[in-house]
Parts: sequence; C-alpha cells; structure tokens
Amino acid sequence: MFPGTQKNAPKDAIAVNHKLLVRAGYIDQLMAGSWTLLPLGMKVVAKISDIIRREMNAVGSLEIAQPLMHPKEIWNETGRWEKAAEVMYQLKDSRKREFALSFTHEEIIMDLVRKFAPSYKDLPLSLYQFTTKFRNETRPQGGILRGREFMMKDAYSLHTSEADLMAFYEIMKQAYLKIFERVGLEVKVTEASGGVFTENRTHEFQAVAEAGEDTIYFCEKCNWAENKEIFRVGEAVNKCPKCGEGKILDARAIEVGNIFPLGKGYAEKMNAFYTDKDGSKKPMWFGSYGIGTSRLMGAVVEVFHDAKGIKWPEAVAPFQIHLVSLGAGDPEMRKAGEIYSLLQKEGIEVLWDETDRGAGEKFADADLIGIPVRLVVSSKTLRQAQGKLVVEWKRRESDKAELIDATEAIMRLNNYK
Amino acid sequence: MFPGTQKNAPKDAIAVNHKLLVRAGYIDQLMAGSWTLLPLGMKVVAKISDIIRREMNAVGSLEIAQPLMHPKEIWNETGRWEKAAEVMYQLKDSRKREFALSFTHEEIIMDLVRKFAPSYKDLPLSLYQFTTKFRNETRPQGGILRGREFMMKDAYSLHTSEADLMAFYEIMKQAYLKIFERVGLEVKVTEASGGVFTENRTHEFQAVAEAGEDTIYFCEKCNWAENKEIFRVGEAVNKCPKCGEGKILDARAIEVGNIFPLGKGYAEKMNAFYTDKDGSKKPMWFGSYGIGTSRLMGAVVEVFHDAKGIKWPEAVAPFQIHLVSLGAGDPEMRKAGEIYSLLQKEGIEVLWDETDRGAGEKFADADLIGIPVRLVVSSKTLRQAQGKLVVEWKRRESDKAELIDATEAIMRLNNYK
Repeated sequence: MFPGTQKNAPKDAIAVNHKLLVRAGYIDQLMAGSWTLLPLGMKVVAKISDIIRREMNAVGSLEIAQPLMHPKEIWNETGRWEKAAEVMYQLKDSRKREFALSFTHEEIIMDLVRKFAPSYKDLPLSLYQFTTKFRNETRPQGGILRGREFMMKDAYSLHTSEADLMAFYEIMKQAYLKIFERVGLEVKVTEASGGVFTENRTHEFQAVAEAGEDTIYFCEKCNWAENKEIFRVGEAVNKCPKCGEGKILDARAIEVGNIFPLGKGYAEKMNAFYTDKDGSKKPMWFGSYGIGTSRLMGAVVEVFHDAKGIKWPEAVAPFQIHLVSLGAGDPEMRKAGEIYSLLQKEGIEVLWDETDRGAGEKFADADLIGIPVRLVVSSKTLRQAQGKLVVEWKRRESDKAELIDATEAIMRLNNYK
Repeated sequence: MFPGTQKNAPKDAIAVNHKLLVRAGYIDQLMAGSWTLLPLGMKVVAKISDIIRREMNAVGSLEIAQPLMHPKEIWNETGRWEKAAEVMYQLKDSRKREFALSFTHEEIIMDLVRKFAPSYKDLPLSLYQFTTKFRNETRPQGGILRGREFMMKDAYSLHTSEADLMAFYEIMKQAYLKIFERVGLEVKVTEASGGVFTENRTHEFQAVAEAGEDTIYFCEKCNWAENKEIFRVGEAVNKCPKCGEGKILDARAIEVGNIFPLGKGYAEKMNAFYTDKDGSKKPMWFGSYGIGTSRLMGAVVEVFHDAKGIKWPEAVAPFQIHLVSLGAGDPEMRKAGEIYSLLQKEGIEVLWDETDRGAGEKFADADLIGIPVRLVVSSKTLRQAQGKLVVEWKRRESDKAELIDATEAIMRLNNYK
C-alpha cells in the first residue's frame, strides 16, 4: 500500500509516534506541524472517528460541519480575537476583510444557535463536528501529537441552567470514557485549568506515556488526578486530598481529550439568549468537549509499540489481517488469492503484501505496521494443507506462530470484533 | 431537529437551493459564500460522500487527507502562486512565512508522491480525499452552488504514460457517471476548457437546471456536449459535429464534477519523476478529478423540488421516513413511539416530528424538508388499526395517501434501497 515502509526514521524525529508512523507509512510531513494522513493513517483516524461518532450520537449530539474561516467580528465579541491572537492564524482577503482560521469553534457555534432564538423547549442542544483545526504553535513537536493543523472532533452543548449543563457534562465525561475504552486506551480524568477557553476548572483525559507533554498527579487508590499546572504542593502532599488514603504518584501523560464547563460567560458576552417559560431572555449555559482524532492516533502509538513497531489495539487497527504471501510461485499466489477472497467475502479487512520480497523483510514490515494478526501463506503452509485452506497465524503481540485452518482464523477474528 | 424550519427565505436569496435549503434547515450562512451544514445538511452530504467513496474505492483509489494550509514554495514551483493568486487565499504567519489555503491540491499531491521516488512498479497510483477547499470568489452566489469555502472530493492519478493516464481517465469518467446515477442526477459529459488547471481540454459533468451558471450545447441524438466557453459557432452549427445527425440544443446547467487530463506539465515543472525499467527518470503523467459534495447537494435541490419544497432522491435523502404524529394525546404518541421503534429496529432512518402542532403546519414542514416518504399516525389511523400497526403512507411526489400496515411500509422501504 502506498507509500510502503521506510528503513530509517526522519532525522529530526524524537517521539516514538513520529518515528513509527512515518516509517510504517501512516503519515507524511508537509511542513512543521502539518501532516498528510496517508492511506493507512486515514483508516486509523476513520476508525477512531467512527467510534467517537457512535458515542456522540448515543448522547443525542447532532453532527454538523462549520466553516473553518471565520469573520473577525464574531471573535471580537468575546475578546478572543485579541486574547487568543498568538495561537490563531489571522488573515486578510483582497478586500481587506479580516478572518481567523478555526482554532476552536465556541463563538461560531454560539453565533449559529443565537440566530435561531431558541426557547427553553429547544434546550438542551448539543452539536458536534469533525473538522480541521489550525493552531499557530511556536514549536510543533511530538510527531503528530502537537500540530499546527490537525483533525478534531469538537462538541458543544447549550442549556437553560448550570445544573442542566453539569448533568450533561457528566454524561459527556462518561461518553468520553467509553470512547477511550473502545479505542483501547487507558486514561485518567484529570482536573486542569481552562487556558484561553475558561477560568473554570476543566477536565482532561490523560493517557500515561513517557512522550506526554503534561505531568499529572494521581492517587494510587482512588480516581483523583490533577494536572501539574494546577497542583498545589500543600501539607498533605503525600496523601490523596480526595480519599485521604492513597499515595500521590506522578507521571508524564498525553492529553487525548478535554471537556470544558464554560458557564454563561460566552452567552453573556455574545448576547446569546434563550426565551424562558415566563418570556424573559436568559443567557445560555455552555459546555465544550474536544478530542483530537489525529493526535489520538499518535497517543495510541506512544502507548502500544515495541522495538519492532506499532501494536494496534483491534478497534483502531487499519486492517484486521496482514496477509503475507511468501514465494512468488504460482501455487502460493493462487492460494493466497483464495484466502484473500475468502476473508474479503467474510467482511474482514485484509492488507495483502503480495510483493516479491523475502520473508525477513516482509515480516519486519508486518511488525512495523502493527496489524493485530499476521497470516502467512507459503510453500510450508501449502504442504500442510492437503486440500484444505491452511494458514500460519501469528498475533502481533505474541511470538507463537501456528498453522490453522482458514475457517478457524475467521472464527477467531469474528470473536475479536 | 435543530434548528427547525423557517417560513421565509433570506431576503437576498435568489437561487432555489438557497431558499429551500435555508428554510428547511439544511444550511446556515456564516458569511457570504460560507455555510454551516446543519444536522439535515450534514446527513445529505455524508450520504453523497459515501456514494463517492464507494466508487473511488472500486477503481482502486486510496483515501488520504492532506493539510489545508500549504507553503508558498510548493505553489511557486508551477507558477500557480501567481497565476491563481486571485482565487487563492494567501496568508502570512507571525514569522512572516507565507501560506496558501487549499483551493485545490495538485501541487501538494505531486510533492507527496515525488518524495517517495516511485518506480514504474508503483504506478499507476490514485489518491483521493474529502477536504475543505477555499476559493476567494469575488461574487459567491447561487446559494451553496458557489462558495468561498466548501467540501470537495478531489482525486488524483499518476501514470507512466499518456496512454495509461487516458485509460484511467476513462475509468474515472465511468465512475463519475455511476456516482451521479446513484445520486439520482442526470448529467451530460461536456467538453470544456481547463481554467487555471491545464491548457488541455477537460470534461465537466453538467446537470441541466435553470439555476446553472454554465450554458452547454448538446446533441439531441448522441452524447456530444460542449461548454459554451469553448463552443465555436461554425458552419454546421445546427448539426452535431459528432454524429452529424442530431440538432444542437442549448441549456443552462450546473457543473457538478470535472475531470482533468493534466498531462506531464506538472511533473516536469516540479521535477516529479518515476524510475523506468531501464533506470531512467521520467516525468509522471497526471490527472485530477473533482466533485464538490456540498455543491452537489445544492444541484440536487435545483433539479428536484416543487413549489412546496425539496423532493430528495432516495439515495441522498437525510432520512428515509418522515414520521408525523398528530394529536398530542397519549394513544397517538404511544402508537407513534411503537412505530418509531419498529422502524429503527429495522435499520430504517426516521425523522420523527413529535412537536405539538397542527396537521397543516406539520405536513407543510414535511413537504419542505422533502424526505421521500411521509408516515402519519393520528386518531384516524388508530381507529383503523384494530390492534394492528396501521399508518398513513404518502410519497413526497404523490398526492395519494393510503392507510397500510406498518409491516407493508417496511417491505416497501426495503425495496427502495
């Protein structure tokens, strides 16, 4: 599959995800902080997006797509045209009108909803989208973890009261936990500050990994966790402030999602009111919820890899099977083709390496690319076959290869689903 | 469904798609030429995208996603930084580096492929993506037909020879015809010029519609068609230059897709070579293939509507069923809920209007939104039911409503698929 694998990582690559995703052919750098998702990378991000989409739909959020170029006037209403100018790409067109490229969408969502003058009956309302975000990072780094342009799922919710916002915020928190669980990533819900988004406390979903930019403190016993940026070294620093029992540990972690209980500040600044039962106009309570989908791919690689390459969790692997045919002879190719067709017919996603190369090179590729199961068809499997469809089955995380019937392979694969 | 329908079209709306898509709640204008896809519009564009994706995969094209912000240097290689400056948004970052926003991706694709130094064995190669395009139109118009920012599927192909390019070009032409056929739109393959893309002749897929910006000439008998921009009034102006028999007719039409046999000019300018069998380096032959997915939604509306609203073809309708429950009484709501669950369980997409409004208003909404089938649950259907699940069935394009069993409705819907 285009463009194939590479022996060497880019010279400037430090992060594991940078090295492995480039070498295995998932991503290619256009310029600093800006990446093409190659066919393999596209498949992973599409699977991540599907998992997220399902959970967003399950909590009643509605999918939309908003423009990426925004008029200055709307960003001025909250003061973020100035306040976030450092991270925001701003441009003028030939008619000297000024625009921002989307680094997030709070103001643009709020502008959309207020136009329709919602009543209390129309709320709560939640909208989400998968769109490109642009952030003028001074130092993009960590491979695909911190880019100047990246894919993001951002969701928003609007409410008549703080209580309703916080109830939905909790529902979203649970939806996020389900998403990361389905992706296969263990995360800690970590209290953090709100940056240019809000002065309220927010929550981050942090995956513990050496490459993480964040340091988090967490309790060894309960689910208490805080980002270092808000952690105050106090008297009881060695005891958890929540359960009072666990020791506090620290770790490097990658932020893979965050949720913001923004309150009613945005609506107040933007005159975004709903009409209450008594006819009075009140500002809408607002929440925002983000997951960087391309970043999440990078985080998964940071957590799931070994010296040989990536080890994708089933749910986000680009393919379920890496089929390797050895020997360019007619019988091997014919048998591999038979197995390929059989798997395809069963709805199993197969990457077939039909190149004319040696076993060592092809196995190294399979380990690098990291598809959960490798199937080999070779003169050896043909000898064992005796008229049956026999393949060599090996899981990426195991050293054990075994000869099994193709129908057995299909059964196992269906069990993983 | 958010945001509901509107009685009046925007004051500046002239095009039918503009009026109907806004009134029915499919799109909302952020600024001139820039639209939010609302939940209904998102569903239509997602269905269009799925149809396209299937046909692109079927011809072996691989899905990727490239950045939208591009370095000036790459656009300079072909001279298009200057040549296309009028349509291209260009910006500087805080470090004074210059960028273009994607108005198309030829140079960026070519840059990607040349990095991997392909051999003749790696070609042909085709890549496609669904990404946002930005075009600095002086006068965005026609509703969603001509925007400054829009969704596009763009595909590219690279070849070792002109013959191979033209063979694939023909395959793509057929794939495009399949796409429009599946969408439900009749198109004419029309010869046209290449604009800022190429000096070669190209092909456009034109849907005949009054709102079209283009005028096309076509033969009443054979498949000859030409865009007015290249049509030369000659001696035999009234006889088809291809079949020599048919009269030439003219019509307004909307361009919904175009394909460009770009040749080897791009590769020559960009030093994008492949290694041939004999080890020599040769420029790659290049083709590019575009469909504006949000524009296609607008074109479908221009073709399929009446005085009451939109009439979606089955394949791209946001839902299969518009379920209207009349009477806010318990029995009606309970029965409607039963039918809703039943349809959901059958995998049928249902928009349920459970608002507490009169029949007239709800039916007008259903006609405006344009879902192919309307089902009504009311005291009347309940009286007829006698323990069964009876609904009133009406197709959008018909005036005839009939009472049928819900199982019969499901059978009919499965037949439409």
